[in-house]
Amino acid sequence: MHELRSNLTKDKKSKIVLFVLDGVGGIPYPKLTELESAKTPSLDKLVKKSETGAHIPILSGLTPGSGAAHLSLFGYDPLSYNIGRGILEALGLDVHVTDKDLLIRGNFSTAKGNGAKIIITDRRAGRITTETNKRVIKILQSKIKNIDGVGVEFIPGLEHRFVCKLKFKRKLESTESMIVDTDPEEVGVPPLAPKNINKKSLKVSKIITKLISLIRIALKNEKRANYVLLRGFSVFPKIPTIQSLYGLRAASIVTYPMYKGISKLVGMTPLRVKGSSIESQVQTLKEEFDNYDFFYFHIKKTDSFGEDGNFREKIKVIENFDKQLEKVLKLRFDVVCITGDHSTPSKMKSHSWHPVPVIINSKNSFYGTSKRFTEKECIKGMMGLFEGKNLMNFILAHAEMLSKFGA
Amino acid sequence: MHELRSNLTKDKKSKIVLFVLDGVGGIPYPKLTELESAKTPSLDKLVKKSETGAHIPILSGLTPGSGAAHLSLFGYDPLSYNIGRGILEALGLDVHVTDKDLLIRGNFSTAKGNGAKIIITDRRAGRITTETNKRVIKILQSKIKNIDGVGVEFIPGLEHRFVCKLKFKRKLESTESMIVDTDPEEVGVPPLAPKNINKKSLKVSKIITKLISLIRIALKNEKRANYVLLRGFSVFPKIPTIQSLYGLRAASIVTYPMYKGISKLVGMTPLRVKGSSIESQVQTLKEEFDNYDFFYFHIKKTDSFGEDGNFREKIKVIENFDKQLEKVLKLRFDVVCITGDHSTPSKMKSHSWHPVPVIINSKNSFYGTSKRFTEKECIKGMMGLFEGKNLMNFILAHAEMLSKFGA
Repeated sequence: MHELRSNLTKDKKSKIVLFVLDGVGGIPYPKLTELESAKTPSLDKLVKKSETGAHIPILSGLTPGSGAAHLSLFGYDPLSYNIGRGILEALGLDVHVTDKDLLIRGNFSTAKGNGAKIIITDRRAGRITTETNKRVIKILQSKIKNIDGVGVEFIPGLEHRFVCKLKFKRKLESTESMIVDTDPEEVGVPPLAPKNINKKSLKVSKIITKLISLIRIALKNEKRANYVLLRGFSVFPKIPTIQSLYGLRAASIVTYPMYKGISKLVGMTPLRVKGSSIESQVQTLKEEFDNYDFFYFHIKKTDSFGEDGNFREKIKVIENFDKQLEKVLKLRFDVVCITGDHSTPSKMKSHSWHPVPVIINSKNSFYGTSKRFTEKECIKGMMGLFEGKNLMNFILAHAEMLSKFGA
Repeated sequence: MHELRSNLTKDKKSKIVLFVLDGVGGIPYPKLTELESAKTPSLDKLVKKSETGAHIPILSGLTPGSGAAHLSLFGYDPLSYNIGRGILEALGLDVHVTDKDLLIRGNFSTAKGNGAKIIITDRRAGRITTETNKRVIKILQSKIKNIDGVGVEFIPGLEHRFVCKLKFKRKLESTESMIVDTDPEEVGVPPLAPKNINKKSLKVSKIITKLISLIRIALKNEKRANYVLLRGFSVFPKIPTIQSLYGLRAASIVTYPMYKGISKLVGMTPLRVKGSSIESQVQTLKEEFDNYDFFYFHIKKTDSFGEDGNFREKIKVIENFDKQLEKVLKLRFDVVCITGDHSTPSKMKSHSWHPVPVIINSKNSFYGTSKRFTEKECIKGMMGLFEGKNLMNFILAHAEMLSKFGA
């Protein structure tokens, strides 16, 4: 699909913006979804002139992680390009990564007991501040620099999050990074062992086991951040860039490390945003409008409030986005696409498999099928229910950037 | 897909029931379908709180056999796991099967003439009674025990149906069982020859030819059951169990041999049903509720009446099911899924390719899209139109048994 679409790409310049409202989709709670409850006059107006549909991020019934869902939106088959959370976090934190590095996403956590009797009491160490995080990282880095000849580097993230980079002396295969996540995803139980999933990952598994023991000792005087949960073990993936595939100069306007990471992975230039509000992101879009063809504009808070089960605040983020939309439309993009990467129903407090509404506004839109940017309205549209990895087909088609297929 | 889903399965326990109303889907006859015509107050109420969709059993436009359609519902790709009718019937009749056996589904039939001039006059020998069947099987077994060193065993089924087991002295490959069915599917014509489809099945083909000749001679004094039509030549397939794939303790509540067979094939425990009514099946469900995680509940008569073109009786089966539904809902399953394996429109008197309505009721359902459990209403739902093999994704997702895919 990927190659096919790339071969059809024409050398036509268009201005495209893709808004991803993270986790925007919902389920009725109790009668209406977040999108159905939100007052969105600008969106309502835009939808009436847009082509609509709903995308299935990965496959029917599969709930995606954010990385996989985003790859899909950018046109990559998420089943072929499975990218670990470790690499995404690292890229988002501007960590320099080579093909000799193994990246791990870490959470500081609180545990009691020792050895085989360790019990996790808080998976996020009470969400310590970023300042505390930086202090604890310094302790770790001063005490752990090398395990069995492999260099160890710790990089602080936001709150309880950090990245650990293992620096090998040779190129790594992706199979070597296949290690079981240690996060048990509940408290009151022991962490999982970082077992190797295949023979090739045995060596790495042993290093990780040692790493965790050393960290436990190094953090013994900490009250909250006295343990770590590790996941997303991953190496640098080979992935063609948006530029090489479609000739698009692509930029990202994001405020969270992981999304910056994934945008860099596909060759986008992350643009500087002054502040973290949607308004400041729109300001960046205005300022950089002339410099790029394709803008990926990511709004995080819809997902965060969905995960917290905060129905009202999720609605407010949607309404806030709606208020900013008028300014964006004045820029006169050739194609405006608005969707989410997946659903995060407030009722479920988690990502879900439910389809995500999509609208595409261009002069080529088949409009008139849907009245609002909601799950139920958009699924009626002419794009129908489709796999997320095909969204880029539609976007490029609306931008008149794809040649005819076949004679 | 299979492996992917299996890898994502979490160790969470849920109570799931999957109702399969065999051949429940229809086409307008003349204005409404069977489901549209039926009075179903309980279903109507349930649908309003359920996620809905419609499944394509195999692929667009392909009409499935029951075995293939069921495999699909249980999450197996029916194009990869092609299981013969012979093996399904044999398992349903509790025949012990090893990898050295070749199974054949047989119908007693009526023929006139001999040799190349045999003409089939009744494909089901006037639907002889099961008692007659047993008597005739005894005659066959007394006269035919061995062909070219291959053991021959006959097992009576219901009415005109039987199973023939050929016992080889070595393990068989599935290619060896690829033989043309002899049923011409019409009367007044000769049977088809049991030709080999490839070189590897030549030997078996010769044995079958001899078998048919010997049967014709053995039954020469029978008036009705004086001939046989053979089909579904098959060997024991390798198929992973539901338990091994998803950690579900699965049971089947079925009243027909073939469906018992297919449920055993995927590792379900067939439960004893006292009688053959839906009511007695529900009684079994109640009694065994605590002992299993997943119940496959099969209702046969919707299909039988559809095949007979009996629109009114098919409606009655649906209405009868509706009456039993309240009792089931009192059991408080985490997930209730109701669908069919395929459509059997009374107007067509046969299986068809038309999509089959699906509802899934759980606390995670996106409801509010469909008003009734009918073809037209369900297809509007948030599961959309999807391939049957993905149904299990949705069921496991609703049961919160699948982890996120990707980072």
